[in-house]
Amino acid sequence: MAKSGKKMSKVEGKPAANAPARGAAGAPASQGVPDAARGDDTVLIALSLPPVKASESMAAYFAKCQEKLGFIPNVLKAYAFDMGKLEPFVAMYNELMLGPSGLSKLEREMIAVAVSSHNRCYYCLVAHGAAVRQISGDPVLGELMAMNYRAARLSKRQRAMLDFAVKLTAEPWTVEDGDRERLRRAGFSERDIWDIAAVAGFFNMSNRVASATDMRPNSVYHAMAR
Amino acid sequence: MAKSGKKMSKVEGKPAANAPARGAAGAPASQGVPDAARGDDTVLIALSLPPVKASESMAAYFAKCQEKLGFIPNVLKAYAFDMGKLEPFVAMYNELMLGPSGLSKLEREMIAVAVSSHNRCYYCLVAHGAAVRQISGDPVLGELMAMNYRAARLSKRQRAMLDFAVKLTAEPWTVEDGDRERLRRAGFSERDIWDIAAVAGFFNMSNRVASATDMRPNSVYHAMAR
Amino acid sequence: MAKSGKKMSKVEGKPAANAPARGAAGAPASQGVPDAARGDDTVLIALSLPPVKASESMAAYFAKCQEKLGFIPNVLKAYAFDMGKLEPFVAMYNELMLGPSGLSKLEREMIAVAVSSHNRCYYCLVAHGAAVRQISGDPVLGELMAMNYRAARLSKRQRAMLDFAVKLTAEPWTVEDGDRERLRRAGFSERDIWDIAAVAGFFNMSNRVASATDMRPNSVYHAMAR
Amino acid sequence: MAKSGKKMSKVEGKPAANAPARGAAGAPASQGVPDAARGDDTVLIALSLPPVKASESMAAYFAKCQEKLGFIPNVLKAYAFDMGKLEPFVAMYNELMLGPSGLSKLEREMIAVAVSSHNRCYYCLVAHGAAVRQISGDPVLGELMAMNYRAARLSKRQRAMLDFAVKLTAEPWTVEDGDRERLRRAGFSERDIWDIAAVAGFFNMSNRVASATDMRPNSVYHAMAR
Amino acid sequence: MAKSGKKMSKVEGKPAANAPARGAAGAPASQGVPDAARGDDTVLIALSLPPVKASESMAAYFAKCQEKLGFIPNVLKAYAFDMGKLEPFVAMYNELMLGPSGLSKLEREMIAVAVSSHNRCYYCLVAHGAAVRQISGDPVLGELMAMNYRAARLSKRQRAMLDFAVKLTAEPWTVEDGDRERLRRAGFSERDIWDIAAVAGFFNMSNRVASATDMRPNSVYHAMAR
Amino acid sequence: MAKSGKKMSKVEGKPAANAPARGAAGAPASQGVPDAARGDDTVLIALSLPPVKASESMAAYFAKCQEKLGFIPNVLKAYAFDMGKLEPFVAMYNELMLGPSGLSKLEREMIAVAVSSHNRCYYCLVAHGAAVRQISGDPVLGELMAMNYRAARLSKRQRAMLDFAVKLTAEPWTVEDGDRERLRRAGFSERDIWDIAAVAGFFNMSNRVASATDMRPNSVYHAMAR
Repeated sequence: MAKSGKKMSKVEGKPAANAPARGAAGAPASQGVPDAARGDDTVLIALSLPPVKASESMAAYFAKCQEKLGFIPNVLKAYAFDMGKLEPFVAMYNELMLGPSGLSKLEREMIAVAVSSHNRCYYCLVAHGAAVRQISGDPVLGELMAMNYRAARLSKRQRAMLDFAVKLTAEPWTVEDGDRERLRRAGFSERDIWDIAAVAGFFNMSNRVASATDMRPNSVYHAMAR
Repeated sequence: MAKSGKKMSKVEGKPAANAPARGAAGAPASQGVPDAARGDDTVLIALSLPPVKASESMAAYFAKCQEKLGFIPNVLKAYAFDMGKLEPFVAMYNELMLGPSGLSKLEREMIAVAVSSHNRCYYCLVAHGAAVRQISGDPVLGELMAMNYRAARLSKRQRAMLDFAVKLTAEPWTVEDGDRERLRRAGFSERDIWDIAAVAGFFNMSNRVASATDMRPNSVYHAMAR
Repeated sequence: MAKSGKKMSKVEGKPAANAPARGAAGAPASQGVPDAARGDDTVLIALSLPPVKASESMAAYFAKCQEKLGFIPNVLKAYAFDMGKLEPFVAMYNELMLGPSGLSKLEREMIAVAVSSHNRCYYCLVAHGAAVRQISGDPVLGELMAMNYRAARLSKRQRAMLDFAVKLTAEPWTVEDGDRERLRRAGFSERDIWDIAAVAGFFNMSNRVASATDMRPNSVYHAMAR
Repeated sequence: MAKSGKKMSKVEGKPAANAPARGAAGAPASQGVPDAARGDDTVLIALSLPPVKASESMAAYFAKCQEKLGFIPNVLKAYAFDMGKLEPFVAMYNELMLGPSGLSKLEREMIAVAVSSHNRCYYCLVAHGAAVRQISGDPVLGELMAMNYRAARLSKRQRAMLDFAVKLTAEPWTVEDGDRERLRRAGFSERDIWDIAAVAGFFNMSNRVASATDMRPNSVYHAMAR
Repeated sequence: MAKSGKKMSKVEGKPAANAPARGAAGAPASQGVPDAARGDDTVLIALSLPPVKASESMAAYFAKCQEKLGFIPNVLKAYAFDMGKLEPFVAMYNELMLGPSGLSKLEREMIAVAVSSHNRCYYCLVAHGAAVRQISGDPVLGELMAMNYRAARLSKRQRAMLDFAVKLTAEPWTVEDGDRERLRRAGFSERDIWDIAAVAGFFNMSNRVASATDMRPNSVYHAMAR
Repeated sequence: MAKSGKKMSKVEGKPAANAPARGAAGAPASQGVPDAARGDDTVLIALSLPPVKASESMAAYFAKCQEKLGFIPNVLKAYAFDMGKLEPFVAMYNELMLGPSGLSKLEREMIAVAVSSHNRCYYCLVAHGAAVRQISGDPVLGELMAMNYRAARLSKRQRAMLDFAVKLTAEPWTVEDGDRERLRRAGFSERDIWDIAAVAGFFNMSNRVASATDMRPNSVYHAMAR
């Protein structure tokens, strides 16, 4: 659910026109490779769960996404088969990723991508990789988070943050006082530590919902903020 | 090959009276073992995040917990340092675990415990292990979910459900069409599959928040429904 | 966040009377869940290996178990298809777990359970979890050993002991001088180190015999020393 | 070492002008994030191994890279401290990736990226991810190979090819007749199977040389063929 | 504790004369490599646990080893600090490896080595690798068991046996009815299945005692039955 | 591709005479065990890829192998179905393993075997285990590298070298500045670090080509330099 600005909406104009060309006469066909993301914008998940009429608040939220991003992130459409499921998801997501925190929005997105990289989650890597590129204005930072955060040139603070988030993802049962202490020494407050854990936890949930349902990211993300 | 006999039945007779004595003159002291869960009801997490005044809806919810359960689960008190975090957590939890679903409440708790067992999460194993014992009326079922769900005598339906949830926990990147198809063949609907994924996902989040913060379960859970 | 209330306290009042009812008309049936441990006291392993007539010494040992524990642990009955196998098993077990050692009996049982937790062995977690509860008089300590020993409040000595035993279980090929040195610094003698290794080793054997044969623990263990 | 055409050389015109802006007044600074790939084009590896004068054949090869790609891939410059090492590397690389084979060039690049994804190799994911995008004309295919090849819509042939390559990467000791038979059933010849193994093997080598030396990809790759 | 015959005792005549030469003027010195197994016959474990006077039965057993093998296996000398530990170890070992069974002695040794290979146990690989070579008269079979049993040309029976033993070693918690059924289909009786489990279990114990104590194999094993 | 001298060629005289005896009336038959390495010298890989006529340089190289070693290593014969593949392989191998380096030839072979042990590669363990035995004149050193290099008595330099090579093999994505710094502190130059990485990388390639094709080592290696 990355935010995008004008630049992105320009890019958006093209995919519709572009996509059919690829399936028909583009390079992949001559290589025998199907267009790898065909249908990502039409069949959002591998479960047949058609959307219901949006509640008033969710209809307003969708309208806001459309206005600000130029599209509605597929994860929201996927949850829209049941407003009782969509609403708490949106509430939790917005509080965690956009609410007040000692972590910058970029840092929260960096956690999202590093966790999703450990879990090899296609949906979240695409959507939140775009967010890292966009918020940071550093297209390579998004790639590094998605490929191997250890290869990035990071501040000690951000490296400690990601080390904690990825350890918590890989082997949560081994996290102990020493790990929390390392975050404190890197300058994080008690509340910041909660937030690192909560964002890492949230993406460990989302990665699994996305993988379980084969959730497909909006194709517009791919070219965003490159 | 544990020994049992008279000594044990004495201990069994008086847990309530015994508990305070334990820290002072009970058996552990003579063994040099500290009371393993000392303070679990007073220091709920390893972060210093004091609760704020509860919002109206949360105050009502806490009152309802107190009335129905006789206590407020520590996870709720842990989140209570920020109503903006507590409210979506409660909303999502209640919808997932208590809302309408093709999965019985017991099945949802079984997923919770099997996932938490993979992640070796002390808080969730204690709290949701108690829930499995209680809802099922089968105290051993809770133990089996916590120890190794593969050792339980389960219906094909429930075994397929837990196999999916645990695979999704351990290696989410390998979940594919074949896995969803197995659930369908075991009788699950499209919506049920979403619910299995969502509950498994939720506990992958909660396990990590709990492990990151060393969250301690209310000690009352341990003896519940044995 | 398990619910508790009146229903539960009714169940609690009558475990002995309740157990037989469970297979017939108890709560699980209404949930579609089979009684998870049905038959644990009658079909002890998944191999057809009927017991032979006990040798004199083993008959005496069984009688002693019956007198002191009130039952014969199923592992002994499982080995009783061949006295040539039962006798050395009993001899080794008793020497290791009950013989003279710098490790207390509780410490040896703690190793048994922490190792069995790593190996997710249902039989050993149930039987030796009960032993930890009973010997320590601390029911929660048994749970902690079975769920995640890292979450327990332990002395440095006992933490070092369990760290060694679990590393030896998980990756024996990486154990080196530094690991032994850590035990010495925690106050263990040369002989104590042998004993930690020998108990950890023994349960790595027993866990595998139990898992290979689907060995079922006596159901009486579950409620013991709670 | 992806090939690129005119489109790329246009892109190339910009980074030099763009890069300083980012370090100075761009978005990352305001977020406290260092430019994640700073120096990737100047400090190619973390070892101090200055290039020697290129041999005649290698000088010619570098000139050809410059002409066709518009740049010399950093991996070549990294090996250029010793012509005795560079020459066999180039010979093997060109034979494997560009020589005659029943595998298309795109298929060989797909293997390169799927293997590098398993090994989380920053250099190879960037360079060969660009190659997949370019050769296929399908920018998303490169992302899918880098993130999780299992999420791509692939032909059975290509899925079997990547399953073999990734299994060989992750657990080479488990590859057996059945795995080779699956490739034959998917239409691969004996020689094709060798080539799949050889390309997967080559990137298991390159990934490790790159990770051991912290090899940095030319920054031009990032925007290529998006 | 491999058996050896005349051939071995001839080999035995040489090491004493040979060993000093190696430390003094042999190739390793010129390479700066210390003799890798120096002291294996004198410092048997990394714990200071001097032997006590052997009990009558153990003294007789040691004499028998010396007579039949030409040496006393170091594992026996290591346990000899306490006859209470040595005696059940010897009893269990002899029953399992030499007692009546549907598994041939060679098959039991093959399990020993394949399990020890998974656990990378130097002591057991050396001692039982020699046993496989000697009993089979096929020196390569010992190497294959130690390196990767999957690369050996085995009968279906023996492959099924080792697959079970190694799965039980690596992930005992996943062994279920299907695994036992596969052994039955490969021709194993109920008792044979117990024996496979018991031998695999025993070496999972011994591997850990050996690794925990850095147990060193008698150097005579290395050249035996090559 | 181990070098051998006169001693080996003596050994070579025997296998031909020995081999048939084993298949016919030797011990394995009576045990029901097939000769584990039958055909290793005739069917070199599990792919049908017959050799082509050797190029001039490769014919000369084969002649040199035959003269110096007394045989042609099977890996060379396996690659000989295509001179375009064989030649760069030989060039890279010879430069890495025999060319100038701050690492001794023995050290390079030690890396080869320790890496191949992690990857459980039968071909490379046999061929390069023989090389370690031969070059070092210390037969046990070869066994230690193949079984568990951590059990060897090594200099700090060689231990650091192998720790790096094996970490790079197991988890290349975690190698960072600290790992390189440890090598520098152990006395390795920048170029030496490259060489450690390059040799480890090369065997990560070769192990996979060998495992993918079930490559069989020349049986002469087994008895060499014992």
